[in-house]
Amino acid sequence: MKQLNIIIFASLLSMQAQATIWEALPEVAPAPADNPTTADKVELGKMLFMDPRFSSTGTISCNSCHNIMEGGDDSRRVSMGVHGKTGARNSPTVWNSAFHSVQFWDGRAASLEDQAKGPVSNPVEMGMKDVETAMQRVRAIPGYKPVFEKVFGQGGMTIDNAAKAVAAFERTLITPNSPYDKYVKGDKKAMSKQQVTGMNKFAAIGCTACHSGAAFNGPQQKPGEGFYTKFPTFDSEYVSKYNLDKDKGREEATGKSADRDMFRVPTLRNITDTAPYFHNGSVNDLAEAVRVMAKTQLNQTLPEKDVKDIVAFLGALTGEYPDIMMPRLPSKAGASIVED
Amino acid sequence: MKQLNIIIFASLLSMQAQATIWEALPEVAPAPADNPTTADKVELGKMLFMDPRFSSTGTISCNSCHNIMEGGDDSRRVSMGVHGKTGARNSPTVWNSAFHSVQFWDGRAASLEDQAKGPVSNPVEMGMKDVETAMQRVRAIPGYKPVFEKVFGQGGMTIDNAAKAVAAFERTLITPNSPYDKYVKGDKKAMSKQQVTGMNKFAAIGCTACHSGAAFNGPQQKPGEGFYTKFPTFDSEYVSKYNLDKDKGREEATGKSADRDMFRVPTLRNITDTAPYFHNGSVNDLAEAVRVMAKTQLNQTLPEKDVKDIVAFLGALTGEYPDIMMPRLPSKAGASIVED
Repeated sequence: MKQLNIIIFASLLSMQAQATIWEALPEVAPAPADNPTTADKVELGKMLFMDPRFSSTGTISCNSCHNIMEGGDDSRRVSMGVHGKTGARNSPTVWNSAFHSVQFWDGRAASLEDQAKGPVSNPVEMGMKDVETAMQRVRAIPGYKPVFEKVFGQGGMTIDNAAKAVAAFERTLITPNSPYDKYVKGDKKAMSKQQVTGMNKFAAIGCTACHSGAAFNGPQQKPGEGFYTKFPTFDSEYVSKYNLDKDKGREEATGKSADRDMFRVPTLRNITDTAPYFHNGSVNDLAEAVRVMAKTQLNQTLPEKDVKDIVAFLGALTGEYPDIMMPRLPSKAGASIVED
Repeated sequence: MKQLNIIIFASLLSMQAQATIWEALPEVAPAPADNPTTADKVELGKMLFMDPRFSSTGTISCNSCHNIMEGGDDSRRVSMGVHGKTGARNSPTVWNSAFHSVQFWDGRAASLEDQAKGPVSNPVEMGMKDVETAMQRVRAIPGYKPVFEKVFGQGGMTIDNAAKAVAAFERTLITPNSPYDKYVKGDKKAMSKQQVTGMNKFAAIGCTACHSGAAFNGPQQKPGEGFYTKFPTFDSEYVSKYNLDKDKGREEATGKSADRDMFRVPTLRNITDTAPYFHNGSVNDLAEAVRVMAKTQLNQTLPEKDVKDIVAFLGALTGEYPDIMMPRLPSKAGASIVED
């Protein structure tokens, strides 16, 4: 079976290397028909995204683990939620998450809207009893009402609308104009020689078998359908060293053995800003992450020069973060809604 | 002694009520001669203030407990630092903290510059071994170097300069143009009738004995010299109900029995946005806070109408929060500086 895998992979890689189409990142993310992106909705979503008062302790907002002032993650191996509790997985960046067709490492959320509701009631994340309890806190702050009603009309303060607003905001979190984007649009000086060398190696050795497309997260799928890969595919000393086979990936969400070790292929955009790496955050060095991926996914031991060149190329995927004004979070006058 | 206190208080109050001078909030805070406020320094200070990576877990920034997107505090009874640890005191608002001549509830920091260094190594706040260890993390992020050097010159990445930058940023956190400010500047329609009634009662019953001046935190002192009051002054059922006599206040900082139960008089600016109240955050209702203060500090049981009027007046002290752009926090390329 392993032998067969290798043969299939080798053929795939060879096809892929020849067919690689380098795509620039779109500057606007597609939105679902039932949740068009509007300025007012984005503003509300930003408020909800940044507001920590909807966690049990009042200390954890979406931004706590997906810090948009930095790489859209939390710089931690695994995230830390209420009461210092930790989960098992590394926080994926929220930047360009709009270009993922499913959300979470195991793809268990079919959309950004679905995803937004998950962490609220996760006991090691925001720790609320349920999302409705969180919505009661939102409703307890009078200043949120007119903002919701402006976007969703009277009676619009629902959890689904809150999730829609957060998703709409997240669809604006796009980082175009990386050196790579400029390069593929025709500015041949935008990437260094080493970066171009690394780019060609990245394709030649087969990274693009999975990390293809504008967001380097695989071929475009229909919304709700994920692009998954088995990780690790090949055994090596890295698997035990970095504990790569403990987490069963998508199987933990679906219960199907066919999903064992399957993970959504993550974007490589802004990867210089999102260490540590992998679903368990076990590697805190991009060069080592490249070595591990080459070995566990492509069964190759890369020469150090190739590692350096590919790391240089990955550096070209860091784009321009837009300026974002801090939201003003309304208070309930004379009383805190956080009672712990 | 208690009788004497009452007599002294009564005379003070009567003098105060007649002499009350209502002051609008200045739009610019004074800065010490050795730390003039400049735009570049403010920008650096904002970055440091918002960056959680200088806490042991990478999760707690200055903004975690002093959320400038809301009331400059954390909506919690007492703050929650790394690993969910909690301290004994309520987070004071950072808004208008520039108008305090000393910092912390017990005044143990003589300046904003001194204050900024405190929480970094507090084990229940940011939890770093010491401030120098935190500075090593700052230095590990290449993107901070040019920002420091632009402000402080070569070799400028020191903890004292970091504290200066944070203090400079905090001096811009001012909320002028409250209804009260507009009223005292001549716009007699800026406050409601009830608010004006409450304002007069606030002075007449003696609140202004302590809460005077533009920030309602007492008469202006020299920088580094605090304006303190004994809290609680009069015994009542509130003292045990809200556990008001457990914390020994400034005595815990100085070790002097003369400082027992002495607390820096807090600002009342934006008090509608800074619940819960008191040094221990024990009261989560502004009206109740007014009742408690009247009883424990002025030995008065206020009629409910007076309580409502004073609460209405306090609502007039909520000013305009300036728009603030989120800082962009630089990353160390390909590695996280947070290793826990």
